Amino acid sequence: MRYVYTLREGTANASGLLGEKGANLAEMTGMGLPVPPGFIVTTDACAYFLRSGRLPEECEEQIRARLPCLEDGTDKKFGEGRTVSVRHGSEISMPGIVESILNAGLNDQTVKIFAQQSGENFAYNSYARFIKTFGIVILGIPPERFKSTASAKNDCESFKRIIESEKHVFPQDAEEQILECVRGMFRSWNSPKAADYRKKNGIDSAIGTACIVQSMIYGNLPASGTGVCFSRDPSTGKKKIYGEFISGMQGEDLVSGIVTPEPIDRMKDIFPSAYAEIGTIASLLESHYRDMQYMEFTIEKSKLYILEVARAKRTSEAAVRAAVEMAEEGLITREEAIMRVDPYEARRLLQKRIDPSAEKRTIAKGIGASPGAASGEIIFDTQKAAELTAKGRKVILVVKDTSPDDIPVIPSCQALVAAGGGATSHAIVIARGMGMPCITSAGIKLDYAGRNISAGGVSVAEGSIITVDGSTGDIIEGEVLMGEPAASKYFNTLLSWCDSFASIRVFANADNPEDAEKAIKAGARGIGLCRTEHMFFGERLQEIQKMIMEDDKGKSLEKMMEFQKQDFIGIFKIMGSLPVTIRLLDPPLHEFLPDPDKLKEELALLKKEGQNTAEKERMLENVMSLKEKNPMMGLRGCRLGIMFPEIYAMQTKAIIAAAMETGATPEIMIPLVSSWEEMKETRSIIDKAAADFMAKQKKWANYSIGAMIELPRACITADRIADYAAFFSFGTNDLTQATYGFSRDDAEKKFLARYLESHLLEENPFLTIDKNGVGALIRIASVAGKRKNVRMSVCGEHGGDPASIKFFDSLGLDYVSCSVYSIKIARLAAAQSSIKRKEISS
Amino acid sequence: MRYVYTLREGTANASGLLGEKGANLAEMTGMGLPVPPGFIVTTDACAYFLRSGRLPEECEEQIRARLPCLEDGTDKKFGEGRTVSVRHGSEISMPGIVESILNAGLNDQTVKIFAQQSGENFAYNSYARFIKTFGIVILGIPPERFKSTASAKNDCESFKRIIESEKHVFPQDAEEQILECVRGMFRSWNSPKAADYRKKNGIDSAIGTACIVQSMIYGNLPASGTGVCFSRDPSTGKKKIYGEFISGMQGEDLVSGIVTPEPIDRMKDIFPSAYAEIGTIASLLESHYRDMQYMEFTIEKSKLYILEVARAKRTSEAAVRAAVEMAEEGLITREEAIMRVDPYEARRLLQKRIDPSAEKRTIAKGIGASPGAASGEIIFDTQKAAELTAKGRKVILVVKDTSPDDIPVIPSCQALVAAGGGATSHAIVIARGMGMPCITSAGIKLDYAGRNISAGGVSVAEGSIITVDGSTGDIIEGEVLMGEPAASKYFNTLLSWCDSFASIRVFANADNPEDAEKAIKAGARGIGLCRTEHMFFGERLQEIQKMIMEDDKGKSLEKMMEFQKQDFIGIFKIMGSLPVTIRLLDPPLHEFLPDPDKLKEELALLKKEGQNTAEKERMLENVMSLKEKNPMMGLRGCRLGIMFPEIYAMQTKAIIAAAMETGATPEIMIPLVSSWEEMKETRSIIDKAAADFMAKQKKWANYSIGAMIELPRACITADRIADYAAFFSFGTNDLTQATYGFSRDDAEKKFLARYLESHLLEENPFLTIDKNGVGALIRIASVAGKRKNVRMSVCGEHGGDPASIKFFDSLGLDYVSCSVYSIKIARLAAAQSSIKRKEISS
Repeated sequence: MRYVYTLREGTANASGLLGEKGANLAEMTGMGLPVPPGFIVTTDACAYFLRSGRLPEECEEQIRARLPCLEDGTDKKFGEGRTVSVRHGSEISMPGIVESILNAGLNDQTVKIFAQQSGENFAYNSYARFIKTFGIVILGIPPERFKSTASAKNDCESFKRIIESEKHVFPQDAEEQILECVRGMFRSWNSPKAADYRKKNGIDSAIGTACIVQSMIYGNLPASGTGVCFSRDPSTGKKKIYGEFISGMQGEDLVSGIVTPEPIDRMKDIFPSAYAEIGTIASLLESHYRDMQYMEFTIEKSKLYILEVARAKRTSEAAVRAAVEMAEEGLITREEAIMRVDPYEARRLLQKRIDPSAEKRTIAKGIGASPGAASGEIIFDTQKAAELTAKGRKVILVVKDTSPDDIPVIPSCQALVAAGGGATSHAIVIARGMGMPCITSAGIKLDYAGRNISAGGVSVAEGSIITVDGSTGDIIEGEVLMGEPAASKYFNTLLSWCDSFASIRVFANADNPEDAEKAIKAGARGIGLCRTEHMFFGERLQEIQKMIMEDDKGKSLEKMMEFQKQDFIGIFKIMGSLPVTIRLLDPPLHEFLPDPDKLKEELALLKKEGQNTAEKERMLENVMSLKEKNPMMGLRGCRLGIMFPEIYAMQTKAIIAAAMETGATPEIMIPLVSSWEEMKETRSIIDKAAADFMAKQKKWANYSIGAMIELPRACITADRIADYAAFFSFGTNDLTQATYGFSRDDAEKKFLARYLESHLLEENPFLTIDKNGVGALIRIASVAGKRKNVRMSVCGEHGGDPASIKFFDSLGLDYVSCSVYSIKIARLAAAQSSIKRKEISS
Repeated sequence: MRYVYTLREGTANASGLLGEKGANLAEMTGMGLPVPPGFIVTTDACAYFLRSGRLPEECEEQIRARLPCLEDGTDKKFGEGRTVSVRHGSEISMPGIVESILNAGLNDQTVKIFAQQSGENFAYNSYARFIKTFGIVILGIPPERFKSTASAKNDCESFKRIIESEKHVFPQDAEEQILECVRGMFRSWNSPKAADYRKKNGIDSAIGTACIVQSMIYGNLPASGTGVCFSRDPSTGKKKIYGEFISGMQGEDLVSGIVTPEPIDRMKDIFPSAYAEIGTIASLLESHYRDMQYMEFTIEKSKLYILEVARAKRTSEAAVRAAVEMAEEGLITREEAIMRVDPYEARRLLQKRIDPSAEKRTIAKGIGASPGAASGEIIFDTQKAAELTAKGRKVILVVKDTSPDDIPVIPSCQALVAAGGGATSHAIVIARGMGMPCITSAGIKLDYAGRNISAGGVSVAEGSIITVDGSTGDIIEGEVLMGEPAASKYFNTLLSWCDSFASIRVFANADNPEDAEKAIKAGARGIGLCRTEHMFFGERLQEIQKMIMEDDKGKSLEKMMEFQKQDFIGIFKIMGSLPVTIRLLDPPLHEFLPDPDKLKEELALLKKEGQNTAEKERMLENVMSLKEKNPMMGLRGCRLGIMFPEIYAMQTKAIIAAAMETGATPEIMIPLVSSWEEMKETRSIIDKAAADFMAKQKKWANYSIGAMIELPRACITADRIADYAAFFSFGTNDLTQATYGFSRDDAEKKFLARYLESHLLEENPFLTIDKNGVGALIRIASVAGKRKNVRMSVCGEHGGDPASIKFFDSLGLDYVSCSVYSIKIARLAAAQSSIKRKEISS
């Protein structure tokens, strides 16, 4: 039976027999890399040892027979200064569990030869280390017994005596040392520490470990050195050898940071041939592994040895550039290039970020609700924020909870911080749609009276500068150094490849011509959600407030129709022949009215000043009559359209008028449908308004009507709703809310963080779709929709989330619609999903 | 081919050929009832006529051959004063569509004989009527041409001249009159009016009509009269002939109300043998039809004729008594008796009601949220209500919206009126559970400052007496005459039969020993929902408020544990070996704290008075920090248990302690579960608390743990949740809310009424389960639950709704749990559901 393989004899695919590390070394050796010579004792030998307590006789013979291989290509013989390392290595890596034995082969004689080669101090230090590790790892003597002194030579003697006092023998014969080390490595497989690790990580104890015996190479000899390098720049991806190097030192010294290494280019002068060899090896490795590589190397007496090779860790930016360039070099396919980029990490490439090297003092940590970073003055009032931003000042709006009042001022701010609220509350969704950094549940206390925020004892006054990081949720004192978005031409090249592979398309959520323009630039194939309510914020808010409060709504509606029409014309013109889906008014009307508490305060003030309070009182009355205990489940969506048909009729007219003028074929979406009856009723309001208007104008326009599926009941009864809908758009925010019964506004603040921490939830279901619950409902509806040839898409926040996109693609939905700033990531995720599916099915 | 059948020749099951009415008359004749003789011309003849425009020759012959039958048992010959009616009658009744022809057989000669028998005026009136109807119905002359004058004799002449002037012939020959009437009846089948009616009612035109020719009987001859009667008293169900009678008059006169009829008993003296015959016929009809009967009869010259027989309409009370007594008489089976009582109508038998004859002035009409009626003083404040009821005053609590503050005072009030809110809001559910009349969305305006309510211009001051009808939603000025509940010993007898037939059992929702006692009395087989939060209202509210506001909750929890334990002991003792399901704390904590607006007002007052505001300010801070935008989807249910495990641990200890003392095996229910992870986490809190407590006490108690399934996600993932649950209890209130996205608190007020009116909803889904949506989710969960042997039940409001019970029974659920006041109705509905299923499957 064969128990021992030299590195030349081993193969990469024998990791069961040779262990993962052993197989890798064999693979590198097989490729012709200058790997220090050595051999591997197999896991079969380990199994035999663990059964019988001894190595098979053939194994010991085979080890002895292979000792000469340790001298391959080196000028030292084993037993004459040549030392070896002995390492364990199973099929599944167990890093740090069993210490490696270094410098084996040293004894009282050879240490002297070694001292001549490497200096006395280094030689005795190495010998002492060997004796100590041998005592601890192989013989099991408690580590605290081995105490080092100032003299390594003395340590050698005292360590040997400790071993003897423990009734053990320290073998002076180098061969016996190796055999004993191999036995010790096998014995260590069943140490409590190793067994515990396997139990925790679910590793089968039966696999056993192999044992690697390899020549040691010393970088601290004359004409020697050590270094690490990458085949491409790990932070930019640029193709060039990138790394560090030190002369006359060991790998340990490089790691420990006692000396400052030099850039690898410097090797050109000192070790020109080794430097050239590294370049050749890097190319060889990239061709072999078809990816960017990391290498650890040592030069001993001008000769290069490769100690370890691994897939290179890299920044997102580097990942993109390397993938694109490797595809262009023909090293990998375009599909592979696409699959190499993590979309979650790539998201950061599109945002401003805090320079990682910047010094910073974090005041508080909230939930990062929209990535990116920004600095600016803290301002509490929307009014004041509007004034300051008008003057060109950079403002970070800090509020207790987001409210509709904030929405008009959001676009002009740098960032939004909410002390409470969830990552999918209304204002946050809007801010995220604008690519603005946001933090919610910020963990700060707002003191309006004292005009400051405080957290953990630190207080920052209104007007002070802070910096927020919307990825991490950090709120940082003062201004912090920023880096520009890292997205590069390489990323755009990658994206340009994506669309041809993706089967699920990417649309944009866009509420105005500016966003439509951005959407087109980012590669959106249409608008999947145009929220008409956003058209009423800003200076038009007054008009809708009038409409709500007046009994005769006709005049206000007429005005609103006119400006909605202009909005739609603007959007249709930009989108050309691309589809535009317009959602009719969705939020409860009270969202357009001021907060009652604020109104009460204002009223009190007016009274105090003896001013006329009639107007405000009327408004307060309206607000109070519209107030609901659970507005999310109240009078909104198509319920509003049914109770106030004149509003939907007005919006329909505006849409049709804009379509007439531009030739667009709008898709009209009805929100919050719970039944086919509602769908039928609402579509009859729309159809009638459209027909009346077209008859009056004597012009015609095509349009289609679809349902926003965002209630569990709509999913369950989708089969009937499909009879009245040309398309379904899954509103996954509200659907998640209703399916879980988690209020978007309250849950994150109150318990979601705790749920995520305790793994009661693996993901925040408002960010990544809950496949088992919400997803199951979507599946039910999508099966019904497919049967009835209904076009289907998603327009909730999940439309921009890569994991969710993969799920929607698996259901065969036609497109996802996401915020303008998520389009690129969504395109990448869509392509990856399709490529993955093809891989699995092929 | 046979086209004509006498009533003796026809059979009941030939309604296709004879029409419905014809077949009925034939059936009555066949039973030997004294039906006026006659014959039927079949729908085959009609089809022939409509095809060819004429009657088949055989048909005319057959009619002529059967004319003598019209004289059966009468002393008049046809053509000698014997008159007939000619009526249409298809298989599906088309009432009022074609006028009947009366008094056919009269001509210029026979009218004189008729005049001798019935008086000249009556005879000529009859003749004129015949000529006129003949002209209009048979000949199609416009009705406005026939104008009556003071002299019937003159009318006869002028009407005949009108017919002649229209180029028609009024046949003087009686046989020809009949033939012509039959043709006219057939022709009328295709009149626009008839065709229109059939189209509207979806009646197939191909069925055609039959034509009934029947001797006329006159009650206005000497020794004659007419009347109607029931086989049992239609308002009480008592077995005796009940009806009215008038001497010497026609049926028309009785119906028109020109004369006041006498009670039917009076016939004993005037027509003793006819009276006796009616009794015999009533028995005969009941045996034949196996149900209570209604009859119309005429006596002509002392001889009784039965003109019409139908199933008797009756009150709920009568329905119950008649069904029970018929079963006891052996006329019907017990199952049939159970099926005869409409559970929705029977519900009224269990409540006080407004005397139908009472005069009343309704001020406003809201939604009847809990049936029954009550009078009392209007009071706006819970505080004041508590004071007055303590003095024994009858109070109707009128509030804007129900709030937890109201709950302690509710039991002592007569009724609850909420200006806003829904029929399933918290306080209403509680009030309904107590059988208290409630009205929501009352359509009144509350003026707290002016201390009055107003609606439609009427204003009623606080302290004034009103009466409310919780069935109709009426709010009535002053005190109105009341009737006691109509439920009788008969209803209880019926119920005693129900349980042996029902497969789905009925449990009670009961939160205290008093309700448990009532539940047992009403026949509940266990408690399916014991809401622990209700144990914290009243004077204990302070304790839970302390617990919420204190950082160290230990001491408050200790106190709460003690009184909860006493509550459970009380309930367990009453329930004995019957199961008791206890739901752990469910509502958001802020429900236990005062309303923030009220607190603010109180604070302002305290400040004004210069008093210490610290306590109130702390409370306000707490209230504000607990405030949620959509509390229904916020921090409640098991989320609360997970965030504050000490609360559920305390409740568990109280339950286990009570179980130790009484030997009960409590079922502990976890509310608002959305995932198996939550279920696992919560049950580990409970199991640990129970184990610790038992170890400390060195005593043992059995218990089981189940999940309240009230979120769509719980239904969808029930399969996994079942791994941690011994039972599922469907909380259909919250499940309906989340599935539709309809807030229970807001929907009824804001749009549900409109939805019901417009048939966007066929039923209020909070009262009758929505089978297609919510029900489909319950079905998914119940299939999963059954597979894993989970016991299943319903504890939402729908548990007391008959239609919903039928649905739950069809899913094979084990029991429904409903408020104490719905138990009896639920038992009836449960039995009916099982009987119906057996009928269908047999």
